[in-house]
Amino acid sequence: MAKIKDSNVFELEPIKLGENEEYVLRGGRELLPKLPQAFDGIKQIGVIGWSAQGPAQAQNLRESLEGSDINVVVGLREGSKSIPSAEAAGFTRENGTLGEMFDVIKTSDLTLLLIADAALADLHDEIFAAMKPGSTLGLSHGFLIGHLESQGKKLPDNINVIGVCPKGMGRSVRRLYEQGSGINASVAIEQDINGKAVDYALGWAVGLGSPATFETTLTSEYTSDIFGERGILLGAVHGIVETLYRYFISKGATPEEAFRDSVEVITGPISKTISRDGLKAVYEKLDDRGKMQFRHAYSASYRPAYSVLTEIYDEVASGTEIRSIIMSSNRLVKQPMGKIEGSSMWQVGEKVRAARTDEELPINPITAGVYLATMMAQVDVLKEHGHPYSEIANESIIEAVDSLNPYMHAKGVAHMVDNCSTTARLGTRKWGPRFDHVLMHEALPDLDQRPITDEEVIENFFTSDIHDALAICATYRPPIDIAVTD
Amino acid sequence: MAKIKDSNVFELEPIKLGENEEYVLRGGRELLPKLPQAFDGIKQIGVIGWSAQGPAQAQNLRESLEGSDINVVVGLREGSKSIPSAEAAGFTRENGTLGEMFDVIKTSDLTLLLIADAALADLHDEIFAAMKPGSTLGLSHGFLIGHLESQGKKLPDNINVIGVCPKGMGRSVRRLYEQGSGINASVAIEQDINGKAVDYALGWAVGLGSPATFETTLTSEYTSDIFGERGILLGAVHGIVETLYRYFISKGATPEEAFRDSVEVITGPISKTISRDGLKAVYEKLDDRGKMQFRHAYSASYRPAYSVLTEIYDEVASGTEIRSIIMSSNRLVKQPMGKIEGSSMWQVGEKVRAARTDEELPINPITAGVYLATMMAQVDVLKEHGHPYSEIANESIIEAVDSLNPYMHAKGVAHMVDNCSTTARLGTRKWGPRFDHVLMHEALPDLDQRPITDEEVIENFFTSDIHDALAICATYRPPIDIAVTD
Repeated sequence: MAKIKDSNVFELEPIKLGENEEYVLRGGRELLPKLPQAFDGIKQIGVIGWSAQGPAQAQNLRESLEGSDINVVVGLREGSKSIPSAEAAGFTRENGTLGEMFDVIKTSDLTLLLIADAALADLHDEIFAAMKPGSTLGLSHGFLIGHLESQGKKLPDNINVIGVCPKGMGRSVRRLYEQGSGINASVAIEQDINGKAVDYALGWAVGLGSPATFETTLTSEYTSDIFGERGILLGAVHGIVETLYRYFISKGATPEEAFRDSVEVITGPISKTISRDGLKAVYEKLDDRGKMQFRHAYSASYRPAYSVLTEIYDEVASGTEIRSIIMSSNRLVKQPMGKIEGSSMWQVGEKVRAARTDEELPINPITAGVYLATMMAQVDVLKEHGHPYSEIANESIIEAVDSLNPYMHAKGVAHMVDNCSTTARLGTRKWGPRFDHVLMHEALPDLDQRPITDEEVIENFFTSDIHDALAICATYRPPIDIAVTD
Repeated sequence: MAKIKDSNVFELEPIKLGENEEYVLRGGRELLPKLPQAFDGIKQIGVIGWSAQGPAQAQNLRESLEGSDINVVVGLREGSKSIPSAEAAGFTRENGTLGEMFDVIKTSDLTLLLIADAALADLHDEIFAAMKPGSTLGLSHGFLIGHLESQGKKLPDNINVIGVCPKGMGRSVRRLYEQGSGINASVAIEQDINGKAVDYALGWAVGLGSPATFETTLTSEYTSDIFGERGILLGAVHGIVETLYRYFISKGATPEEAFRDSVEVITGPISKTISRDGLKAVYEKLDDRGKMQFRHAYSASYRPAYSVLTEIYDEVASGTEIRSIIMSSNRLVKQPMGKIEGSSMWQVGEKVRAARTDEELPINPITAGVYLATMMAQVDVLKEHGHPYSEIANESIIEAVDSLNPYMHAKGVAHMVDNCSTTARLGTRKWGPRFDHVLMHEALPDLDQRPITDEEVIENFFTSDIHDALAICATYRPPIDIAVTD
């Protein structure tokens, strides 16, 4: 299998993370002049789909390739509701950059398949049939690979198959690019039939603006991605804040205070602290009493959170979660998914966000303990399953504190839960309540009735090798914070 | 396939339920003298396992067969922790009624396999190999059938395979028998190699004390059973009361009042009313304002509950839920399942039960609306999937109000959630939180902010043909209420 260190165009840096050596491409605008060389043989890049990743990737690539003779063309279904939005972004039939999706696939040298998972499951045979032999299929996550595996099917052997998986949602991919930077990505070389797949993949990542590009496989990426969004990236956060909000109210807090001490503390100061100074810095910021409360909350939460996370991992890795996603997607045709934003907690959230001041909130030590225990349990589950440390650090920590939490800080957790990808929304509705209940029924009663420092669990937190790996990976994070505007 | 109406020993009654004709065996102690004839060719009944159903079935059968020459012998694994309990019930090596499980299987003419699902999944090949050719395998639910299907395996073709599925947990099977009655059952004839399977199955049901025995298939029974315990029998009740308890507190109730208005009202007066007079009687008991609140709560809850129930049905019917159960059971070896009873709500429940008076609680109309909407959504999902009406009425309504809710009324919902079968405990932990959240995020905000009577949904409630079917099935219910004593 081709590896990114074998690139003919870009120079890769070796880094030591945990036990392993990995390679990273430090990117940035200065690499854009290399794109025509990286994309050797490619005249047309077809971007198929205009939902989450499509608008961001099509626009970033078009701007990165300005002045080259490579065209970026958007492909959508006839009558797609997204056509006006694509046209507003300048992709039109008139200028030859918008077409029917199969027409675009047939004429593209590199086809980026950014349609919804359910559509991927339905249409992949037709899409494979439409692709030019010798052309390249690009995926931005591994769902299709997992789906084919669960069906006992294989990729066609006459095309390259590559993955570029930005470490954040489409809006962040676009917004950070507009701000002059970009969002980190991982790339995967699944199938290389002409020796050019590595540079196509790296070129694609650089074109999206990735400041640091790591290596993975689509299976590993897909597992940690689907797992991660059900865990600390979204599902677990949703469950944790629902439980803590009620907990603080039960201890006498007003709804506004409880919202600040749960949601705002996580999406605000905890995320900022981890992003700048790592996980242990959260603990160090607390006073002595706070440190004790953190240890108790962490001790009470680690095992319950770990139990739900191991269940999620098994469901995802076994293909069971994909089968559920496909069944649920089919039901959505008749029964649209409900929203969570109507419940009283999220109504309070709107008021709290509107009343924010510049003063930084103090970190609530219980919230910090519960959140970090869950994050570390996720890190440990991924380590036990042999994922690359760069992937663990990125998908369990950096993506949370640099991309999703800041977005949720601006727009609300409920907004994210109600508006992310279908796969993520289904996962959050499925697993968020599980984290809520396991913490409510197990962790919080322990914390209240039998507060202890579990020495083994706390020792593992302080001595984990993830802290060093995170510090190294953090040197690769985008140089500017995301500014959420829409 | 043999049908119960073809019995050579018992007389079956035809009944019209919904669109279909079904057959029922009205049982009772007066049929016990027919058992030797029904069990023609059977000298030894091996009861394998001593957890939920084992103790009840072994003791009931032994007592029902007293004076015949048919022996009931319990088979347990070498060193099983259940041996002392079986011995205390009179099954001992000394008197020849207790043995190593495979020894008992090898010598039995009818082997009742009442071991845990995970053990069934592990051991079925060995068990099939141990059985005498021409003997009969008895199952009390369809898990093994579902598991074999999900693995592409088949039942051995040299044995009879029958099912007798009591409509309640083991404790109720035993307790009602001790009280002189028994619990209804459904029987399934899966494989009949000697023309005697129908009477073996009916004899087994009569021997357990079943006052009315209906017909099903193990696939249908298994689906509705696994589905039902995740739904209104346990998972949904757990979710409903968690959500309503918090809801009433948020409206100013004390914890004790909130517990009475949610849990106590469901397990007490609502269950009693449905059991005696049917579903619509709950509505009729309310005053005009209560009726309006019921309609609003029912309207707000039906669709959210239906959405979770269709998801459960799909997961169960596709085999996905079984695969998850097996993965989870494997994890339990290393990570024992947590309990829910420690959280504050269930602590309050203990106090409330201790302070009960004889006065009947008034039915809270919101609780009634949410509960009945969920129950009716479950009925509708099963009807859409073609289950027999007797099974729908029994497993969605009668089993709830006559068996599980009275038990939970005595011992607490949390006690049940923490102490039922592993498959049910896993299901309750998985789906209870989903009902909690979907009601909290969708139904209750609708009820508070946009209370309406959804005419279609309410009309369907009042005109459903389940009311007549339930009334007919209710004539078959055991003549006495269960008295929970331990």
